Amino acid sequence: MFFASDNSGPVHPKIMQRMGEANTGYAMPYGNDALMDDVRTSLRDIFEAPEAAVYLVATGTAANVLSLACYAQPWQTIFCAQHSHIEEDECNAPEFYSGGAKLTLIPTDNKMTPDALRRAIARRAGGSVHMAQAGPVSITQVTEFGSVHSLEELRALTAVAKDAELPVHLDGARFANAIAALGCTPAEMTWKSGVDVVSFGGTKNGCMGVEAVVFFDPAKAWEFELRRKRGAHLFSKHRYLSAQMAAYLTDDLWLQMARSANSACARLSEGLLAHGAQMIHTPQANMIFARFPRAIHQKLQASGAKYYVLDGDVATGDGDEMLGARLVCDWSMSNYLIDQFLSHF
Amino acid sequence: MFFASDNSGPVHPKIMQRMGEANTGYAMPYGNDALMDDVRTSLRDIFEAPEAAVYLVATGTAANVLSLACYAQPWQTIFCAQHSHIEEDECNAPEFYSGGAKLTLIPTDNKMTPDALRRAIARRAGGSVHMAQAGPVSITQVTEFGSVHSLEELRALTAVAKDAELPVHLDGARFANAIAALGCTPAEMTWKSGVDVVSFGGTKNGCMGVEAVVFFDPAKAWEFELRRKRGAHLFSKHRYLSAQMAAYLTDDLWLQMARSANSACARLSEGLLAHGAQMIHTPQANMIFARFPRAIHQKLQASGAKYYVLDGDVATGDGDEMLGARLVCDWSMSNYLIDQFLSHF
Amino acid sequence: MFFASDNSGPVHPKIMQRMGEANTGYAMPYGNDALMDDVRTSLRDIFEAPEAAVYLVATGTAANVLSLACYAQPWQTIFCAQHSHIEEDECNAPEFYSGGAKLTLIPTDNKMTPDALRRAIARRAGGSVHMAQAGPVSITQVTEFGSVHSLEELRALTAVAKDAELPVHLDGARFANAIAALGCTPAEMTWKSGVDVVSFGGTKNGCMGVEAVVFFDPAKAWEFELRRKRGAHLFSKHRYLSAQMAAYLTDDLWLQMARSANSACARLSEGLLAHGAQMIHTPQANMIFARFPRAIHQKLQASGAKYYVLDGDVATGDGDEMLGARLVCDWSMSNYLIDQFLSHF
Amino acid sequence: MFFASDNSGPVHPKIMQRMGEANTGYAMPYGNDALMDDVRTSLRDIFEAPEAAVYLVATGTAANVLSLACYAQPWQTIFCAQHSHIEEDECNAPEFYSGGAKLTLIPTDNKMTPDALRRAIARRAGGSVHMAQAGPVSITQVTEFGSVHSLEELRALTAVAKDAELPVHLDGARFANAIAALGCTPAEMTWKSGVDVVSFGGTKNGCMGVEAVVFFDPAKAWEFELRRKRGAHLFSKHRYLSAQMAAYLTDDLWLQMARSANSACARLSEGLLAHGAQMIHTPQANMIFARFPRAIHQKLQASGAKYYVLDGDVATGDGDEMLGARLVCDWSMSNYLIDQFLSHF
Repeated sequence: MFFASDNSGPVHPKIMQRMGEANTGYAMPYGNDALMDDVRTSLRDIFEAPEAAVYLVATGTAANVLSLACYAQPWQTIFCAQHSHIEEDECNAPEFYSGGAKLTLIPTDNKMTPDALRRAIARRAGGSVHMAQAGPVSITQVTEFGSVHSLEELRALTAVAKDAELPVHLDGARFANAIAALGCTPAEMTWKSGVDVVSFGGTKNGCMGVEAVVFFDPAKAWEFELRRKRGAHLFSKHRYLSAQMAAYLTDDLWLQMARSANSACARLSEGLLAHGAQMIHTPQANMIFARFPRAIHQKLQASGAKYYVLDGDVATGDGDEMLGARLVCDWSMSNYLIDQFLSHF
Repeated sequence: MFFASDNSGPVHPKIMQRMGEANTGYAMPYGNDALMDDVRTSLRDIFEAPEAAVYLVATGTAANVLSLACYAQPWQTIFCAQHSHIEEDECNAPEFYSGGAKLTLIPTDNKMTPDALRRAIARRAGGSVHMAQAGPVSITQVTEFGSVHSLEELRALTAVAKDAELPVHLDGARFANAIAALGCTPAEMTWKSGVDVVSFGGTKNGCMGVEAVVFFDPAKAWEFELRRKRGAHLFSKHRYLSAQMAAYLTDDLWLQMARSANSACARLSEGLLAHGAQMIHTPQANMIFARFPRAIHQKLQASGAKYYVLDGDVATGDGDEMLGARLVCDWSMSNYLIDQFLSHF
Repeated sequence: MFFASDNSGPVHPKIMQRMGEANTGYAMPYGNDALMDDVRTSLRDIFEAPEAAVYLVATGTAANVLSLACYAQPWQTIFCAQHSHIEEDECNAPEFYSGGAKLTLIPTDNKMTPDALRRAIARRAGGSVHMAQAGPVSITQVTEFGSVHSLEELRALTAVAKDAELPVHLDGARFANAIAALGCTPAEMTWKSGVDVVSFGGTKNGCMGVEAVVFFDPAKAWEFELRRKRGAHLFSKHRYLSAQMAAYLTDDLWLQMARSANSACARLSEGLLAHGAQMIHTPQANMIFARFPRAIHQKLQASGAKYYVLDGDVATGDGDEMLGARLVCDWSMSNYLIDQFLSHF
Repeated sequence: MFFASDNSGPVHPKIMQRMGEANTGYAMPYGNDALMDDVRTSLRDIFEAPEAAVYLVATGTAANVLSLACYAQPWQTIFCAQHSHIEEDECNAPEFYSGGAKLTLIPTDNKMTPDALRRAIARRAGGSVHMAQAGPVSITQVTEFGSVHSLEELRALTAVAKDAELPVHLDGARFANAIAALGCTPAEMTWKSGVDVVSFGGTKNGCMGVEAVVFFDPAKAWEFELRRKRGAHLFSKHRYLSAQMAAYLTDDLWLQMARSANSACARLSEGLLAHGAQMIHTPQANMIFARFPRAIHQKLQASGAKYYVLDGDVATGDGDEMLGARLVCDWSMSNYLIDQFLSHF
């Protein structure tokens, strides 16, 4: 009963298999392997972006900060949601890679709103040399609270950015889960909606450790390559990153796994609601933020269930103290485990 | 006939197998996997250093620069051989990770000498605030030219560093090849010889992408953990790094592979000498720098052999123009390929 | 009628005179001038801190960021008031000098409160490697809104920092104005209240361009000297910084000028209140934030008065639209100019 | 008898006077003072560059590193002479301001040669992502050893840079002394010879602390302004920088002072030669590197003469041990002091 994170599950067997198949003889290092040519083509196809510059790195933080650094000058500020991963979970990696740019936190409990973004950008307008200058806008899709921006919502945000002539980064650590939720195309959720660069996550969705960075403006390619090497993120035995991504893209495996995860999450969510849990956010992908009674938490933990209890999130419901929890389903989550979890309610 | 680099060969099957075995169910992320506990214990045993702080990263550059950054202040200079990897092949990653430290190049064609090191350090003595301050000494073992410092040579270098109260980093991207060449213990080649931190390479020696960083002073542990995360080098699915290293350390696989590589290199070297090649450096591990006639280069390249021709390294021998080449053997190099290579002479 | 800032007034004649007196013959450069010895002794006396490490730089931003960088690791966050100078007016200099530390903004309109600070620090507790780690607390005295923390308030803040074992920086760009307001000693407002390092401002208070940095822990001395040189802030002709500071400290000139400025501000403030202006903050030193009718703004500006109109600060009073203004008095502000300003009401 | 450095002499009275004249009433801060408009116009006139972007900072290191940072990406290397100020005397400030760029040292004892520069650049050619990329070329005029590149020599160097499409920075800490030596115009020694940005020094030549940075490509203006502020080098009471520069430029004071310094140096140099000293470099501006007998050094030092003895520079001449010395004359050096110095020979 592991609901702590989608970064802790196993790798899909098809991905393991492709890595094994790649393990024969010599291959050109540093991204010059033949498999990477296939991956590049596939990603360009999937994103309907024949000119896109496409790269692989091994961690989600690397994908975020290397791509942001290509758009954020050291004297600028990056606009992001208050609880975004780049603010809360990357130990100043965005500041490090950008050479000291600031992060301006858009106040929000979940999805960034166009109004809040506009106000934050407006405070950086006017051209005074004294303040941090307006830099890129970073949007997280799926959000850190399991919500998914509709295409309309996404476009409203990027429109605010474009009005201010600011580039847009999409943190897509859970990109596939968002596509599965929206039923749109990758192109629709990125460049057709005003996104300039996207981290296309694999690690949380059944890969071992691979993320694609897709620049829709190929002019950023060489800078990214230099930043990746300088950041020590260029793999010599790159073919094993390529192999993961190749398998992930084959026959829509990426989408199938995301659908499994989302569907497991829906089953869990329905079960929780049926047992009287309160939803803190409406789950739209593969993460649930819910409150349920302290007594049930105790039973679950005694039975070995793993998940995050939300510090300080306490409410009262039905005469019992309700504590918040974060529950995440990965591609491999089984109905059996979900039902076992729910059986403690 | 791939002699271009030891970073381009396949992963040893036992390592692939262990990664597959690790691929079951959920595992704690970020280095908290149970396998990492085994790896930590094994590395401490192998290094006879029960207190050592031990970490895994996925690239050799990351191992070098994250560990150096724990010892190099931004206003200091790192002393290293003129042609070291950190100077020539890491695209300013040491400068980036140290926050702008300088590299002072010790003039040498191959192994750093104690006298040259002493002179370079002496120029930073005196406490003037105007100049870069003396910082760590970084030694590469095996060197970039395939030479191995004897324990005596190593200790002569670290003695110079210790006289100046400077810490010592060992770039051990080919650590195993050096141990195989010297026949000493890892402890003898590191802390017993005055080394403070070592990059213990796996990637060039049959792993997929894993390097251990071993600090003999555990006080550096927490800083390293923060630097690794901030550098985006902390893997969520860390168990697959652990699995590689676990297999690598089991039954001395690391040493067996290094012996295979060194032994292949010796066979190739003898063959080259027998055919009249000139050795630019005496090969001591798994790399050869040799000159042979241009005509033979042409035959080899026509036959598909892969290796680096050394730009500008041209000499005359036996009435023919001799061009320099770098030839590297990895653990998987076969006698068949070596003999095939030599058959073109 | 220049009320725009105290950084735009003239230099006190006694300071100009001392600079002229220093202009004879040769003097040792880089802070080794004899005058600096006097300045060091005077500052240690004034702060009752015989061991303090004392340095001069030419800008307030340099004083802040060089001293903060000695306490903030790149993976940490600096806690500061939401509208502090280091956040709003230094164009990412704190991030630059600290190597990429973050600033955590304590929500407040004016003075930081202990509760808000405690909550912000608590969110960084727990030792997770994923988040920015808790770093120094920076307090501004006089605040950016003209308020002065009482010694009790100051100690309540530093107590929160000390509970969390965090160092405390005091941005004293208007240090003298705060001392003049509180009537306490420099020691009471600094190390006796838990401050570890202070920027002791001169530039805004009648100097040409000089700020002292005073470390109560002399162990930081050498690091500061290296950071100052590396930041290009070490003056070769340092005697002219020393001369400014020497004159500033002689016969309490610093305190006299601050008293003049505060007293001018009090006169202006009383006049404004008498004419029905609304005080946005209670002026306690030499800055006023007040609202008065748009019509009066127009008259003032037509007459050439210089001050900042606060964007977006609009209220209604007495049937007229009231706009916010920031008015600052420096040491040289005359009763004549104040009365002239008030005559437009 | 102060020959230690031209950064330790007094400020020219006309400069002090202009600073005093500027000290009336209020002035717009941060470079918006009216005097700066005059300075900008004057510098554009002097450089025959009506579009140039012109800024003032207070230290030579700031002028160098802020302007270099506008041309050097963090993954690049700056090419400079082995003993240049940016390498030896700025405590990693170039690395800091560029975000971690490397300095590639062109081997030379004094003036950089085109061949050596070409070879160094060639080693960075080829587009490999692994190495530091070729960045700006920095030339020092007057060199650190008192030599002056002829226009022909300068153009030979910038031609090498231009061939490789690299920008050129001129460290003109002693710009005026070079102009006085060559008798050419500032335009000839800069943009007409291929220089893109120049540090036009004032501090070593009779100012208190002011350097102009002149960009011949005005597109760099805004980036420089942001870098200057972020580096904490933007002065609020900027008028006193302007006043220095205004006086310095009036009636060719800058050139007159440089001529005085060079002429003092020539007198000293002739005297030394007449007394049998060996010139290490041929003095061409206001610095002498010469060897003379140890016994004379002892007499000079006993008499209170100040200058640098060159560590390790020892030779034998006329049966006596000859030690090297660096002797610098500033604008205020008198014949009396020179003759007094020479009287000890």
